[in-house]
Amino acid sequence: MNPVLVEVLRGESLESSHRGSIAVLDADGAVLARFGDIDRPVFPRSAVKLLQALPLVESGAAERLGLTDDELALACASHNGEQAHVRTATGMLAKAGLDLSALECGTHWPSLDTATRALAAAGREPSALHNNCSGKHSGFLCLACVLSRGVDLRQYVKGYVGPDHPVMREVTAALQAVTGFDPTSAPHGTDGCSIPTYGIALRQLALAFARVGSGVGLREGHARAAQRLRRAIANAPFMVAGSGRFDTRVMQQLGERVCCKVGAEGVFCAALPDRGLGVAIKIDDGNNARAAEVAMAAVIESCLRLSGLDAETLHSLSHPRLRNWNGIGVGQLRPTSALVNFRL
Amino acid sequence: MNPVLVEVLRGESLESSHRGSIAVLDADGAVLARFGDIDRPVFPRSAVKLLQALPLVESGAAERLGLTDDELALACASHNGEQAHVRTATGMLAKAGLDLSALECGTHWPSLDTATRALAAAGREPSALHNNCSGKHSGFLCLACVLSRGVDLRQYVKGYVGPDHPVMREVTAALQAVTGFDPTSAPHGTDGCSIPTYGIALRQLALAFARVGSGVGLREGHARAAQRLRRAIANAPFMVAGSGRFDTRVMQQLGERVCCKVGAEGVFCAALPDRGLGVAIKIDDGNNARAAEVAMAAVIESCLRLSGLDAETLHSLSHPRLRNWNGIGVGQLRPTSALVNFRL
Repeated sequence: MNPVLVEVLRGESLESSHRGSIAVLDADGAVLARFGDIDRPVFPRSAVKLLQALPLVESGAAERLGLTDDELALACASHNGEQAHVRTATGMLAKAGLDLSALECGTHWPSLDTATRALAAAGREPSALHNNCSGKHSGFLCLACVLSRGVDLRQYVKGYVGPDHPVMREVTAALQAVTGFDPTSAPHGTDGCSIPTYGIALRQLALAFARVGSGVGLREGHARAAQRLRRAIANAPFMVAGSGRFDTRVMQQLGERVCCKVGAEGVFCAALPDRGLGVAIKIDDGNNARAAEVAMAAVIESCLRLSGLDAETLHSLSHPRLRNWNGIGVGQLRPTSALVNFRL
Repeated sequence: MNPVLVEVLRGESLESSHRGSIAVLDADGAVLARFGDIDRPVFPRSAVKLLQALPLVESGAAERLGLTDDELALACASHNGEQAHVRTATGMLAKAGLDLSALECGTHWPSLDTATRALAAAGREPSALHNNCSGKHSGFLCLACVLSRGVDLRQYVKGYVGPDHPVMREVTAALQAVTGFDPTSAPHGTDGCSIPTYGIALRQLALAFARVGSGVGLREGHARAAQRLRRAIANAPFMVAGSGRFDTRVMQQLGERVCCKVGAEGVFCAALPDRGLGVAIKIDDGNNARAAEVAMAAVIESCLRLSGLDAETLHSLSHPRLRNWNGIGVGQLRPTSALVNFRL
């Protein structure tokens, strides 16, 4: 039974609560903090996009195509579908000699409501470029430029989302190398954007992010690729998520001290390079928008020594006020006291 | 510790789960089924809109203003903000001699994504009429026509959302009479649409809905009003929610055999008049869109003897398939076996 991590108050009363588990590890595998079960496999979903982008850099594809910080950050993104995200994904595909017809992530309206309404107001429909995963998929297609070795690229990339396609085999191999999970025995499923997702324990995910933040325990190519991707994200945090989003706000404020990424169904991973720590969170009920974010903000507060505007920003994210349609304060989200009171 | 009621599968593996509590009572207060704690107060939010509309009918206001089935159903609704909902709310206000400027529920974009995009595509902005609670508030304003007794109505209704306004005192008194809760000692908060919400135990909420479905235990005016509102909802289930919504689909299929209403934060109430039962559900983590709906569908299946298309419809709602952006099946929601296997 995992503990309650986040509470929802209406007035002064508890209205709802979120249980879950958290692992905080260093790159040697030492568990420095744990809440609940950290050994059950969970589907990390989009929280491991940075790990899935390692082959893009290690293979030399990113360098060969001259991918910018914006583009590398977008390869690790669950973006809002704002104009800048769509434009950047379009540019990545163009560098690969492809266009949006190669994307196999599917189409949805932009995640950001104002971006959706702007599109509708212009009389337009969304494309696969608006899919929150279009940057990751554009990164896969850039990786394919190197892997295809002269084969016609448009033919080569067909079905790249399948687990046995060479592109996806590279991606899964990187995930395996960094987390230590075993794809032959792990639970498996299909992600929202149609690529495979595998069950991996929080202990392994936190270890992977400690490694990504420090380079310790990674082969040299992965260590260099991780450093390059972290720098890109720190330089372009808007690309990883977008307007108003947690990941963007945290990294705009804290820079390279945090490299965090939300995933669907209440998963959240982060590297805290200054402290040599990796963090992995899973909310039992799958809520990210409030529960996983509040828990991650609380863990960051507990692990980093923040002051001034840094501390204020993180406190506003760990204790958000809830307002109704008239702007009246009706309640609050807050981490439970166990989560607030641990210090590393 | 409340039990797991609903599971989320990705592939064949458990990805997320939802805990909660359920009370099924008859109108004499006998508990016929229970899961978890049914005595802790929960904020019922929009799940009790039918109870909050009792004064509108009992007072004679509905008859005096000639409110139709559509309008009475909308007074009990959390609607999608579709054109028919907006038009119906506008008509209710006109019958009261008011317009949308009297509404104090606040403004939000329509709950239904296609309605929001249609509004944006037309270059328009939403008004308080699009608020999912605009029908309930229009009902309050119609009630005010009777209560104001000749006082200038526009003056009289100012601040009607406040707990001490005569309109809201009538509404709270009805809630008290039917559920038996004590507003002086209950936890209290402010709802999304700015009216007060009070903590009421699931036991009391289920009892109230058993009473509403049977008339047993209600004073005559409330019994008649409840019957009138139930008939209106059965005749106009689109008005209670809208396109694609659970409440609308269930009542379009089952007619007067079910009168159900979702509330925010994972609350769900229903009357099952054929069986003389009332049902109240609260999902601990506040998830309605999937958890409370799946649980309610499972309870309805367990309590009613369904066959043919009735059974198929409810099964599709208790065991929804999850598809990704490419339409590929990626998983399923399902009630836990305890919830599937109980029979009343």
